[in-house]
Amino acid sequence: MPVNEKLWRKRREEAYKRLWEDLEIGYLDEDLLDILLEFFKRPESYTTSSCSGRIVVVDSRMPWERRDATIIFKKHAPISLDEIKDLLKQPVLYRLWLVASGPIIHVVTLTAKEALKVLRIAREAGFKHSGVMSASRKGYLVELRTGIRLAVLLKTPNGLVVNEQGLNEVVKAVNEALIEGKKRLNRLLEALRRHSIK
Amino acid sequence: MPVNEKLWRKRREEAYKRLWEDLEIGYLDEDLLDILLEFFKRPESYTTSSCSGRIVVVDSRMPWERRDATIIFKKHAPISLDEIKDLLKQPVLYRLWLVASGPIIHVVTLTAKEALKVLRIAREAGFKHSGVMSASRKGYLVELRTGIRLAVLLKTPNGLVVNEQGLNEVVKAVNEALIEGKKRLNRLLEALRRHSIK
Repeated sequence: MPVNEKLWRKRREEAYKRLWEDLEIGYLDEDLLDILLEFFKRPESYTTSSCSGRIVVVDSRMPWERRDATIIFKKHAPISLDEIKDLLKQPVLYRLWLVASGPIIHVVTLTAKEALKVLRIAREAGFKHSGVMSASRKGYLVELRTGIRLAVLLKTPNGLVVNEQGLNEVVKAVNEALIEGKKRLNRLLEALRRHSIK
Repeated sequence: MPVNEKLWRKRREEAYKRLWEDLEIGYLDEDLLDILLEFFKRPESYTTSSCSGRIVVVDSRMPWERRDATIIFKKHAPISLDEIKDLLKQPVLYRLWLVASGPIIHVVTLTAKEALKVLRIAREAGFKHSGVMSASRKGYLVELRTGIRLAVLLKTPNGLVVNEQGLNEVVKAVNEALIEGKKRLNRLLEALRRHSIK
């Protein structure tokens, strides 16, 4: 299953174009730009979908389920107590989850060697749950991921789960989680620069 | 970086011996035995550390931190409300988290082809966060992992976060998460048998 280099180069060019389009329309997390560019400086890597970390409120049976899930709030920056309080006034269908996730970056490499190199750099920067997810003629897909994740139950159809003072503590914790994610991004940027290909 | 086949075979034998020792001393999750044996039936795979999924209560700043973390409860089966209520009476140093995690299985393969094959089987069974974590002369390390994970804040030094009725709902949710993990294990066993090497 060798990688089709021509196809890989074509996809890389498209991804690079999309990066600048996404930036222009404000779709790209600016926290990520420097890191993504650092990957594009590597001749055998490019990035596709990425997220700098986020806080989401979702109504679903379980926070990892997509089916019957309704995202009612999403933010890539710290949240305030009032933002969440407003959401808690609404009725709940399944369960209301407050989820904080660390950054996720998808890198497609031309060779297995480069995939493993990227993995090592990522692990060094605290992206401990990173791995090669698949390999095909399109390249090696490497997912860079930290262990940062909170999924707190806020409310069910039976009422609130968290008390008044508790909500304060929960908001503090998810904000800390988000900031921890941004710190790992900084560490990743530094690690990439240290291991840059001259 | 070719795999040292002799070393790989030696490690495989040791892992197989350890599997039966762990079973004997009750250290091995019995839910996992059939799956681990199914991997050992594949000539180019063996398993190392594995967990069928668990519920943990940990006192730590963040649930993913190991430093300064104290695990005060751990169970591989559903929990009762009373078990958690007892823990809530104790003082808290940082934060008290109730964490439910899905199964994790580590597979070491002899070849890249087998690593990718195992990945495909795992993904088919709902182990969507699986990946090749590293590759060395010892083999390809494949981590099989679902997206199942809850990390609920129960208590801080300022007091309880979850109210009385809410605790009930939280316990229900973490038990559901655990059971969902066991179901994925069953799906993995079926998928492995479908793709077994004759």
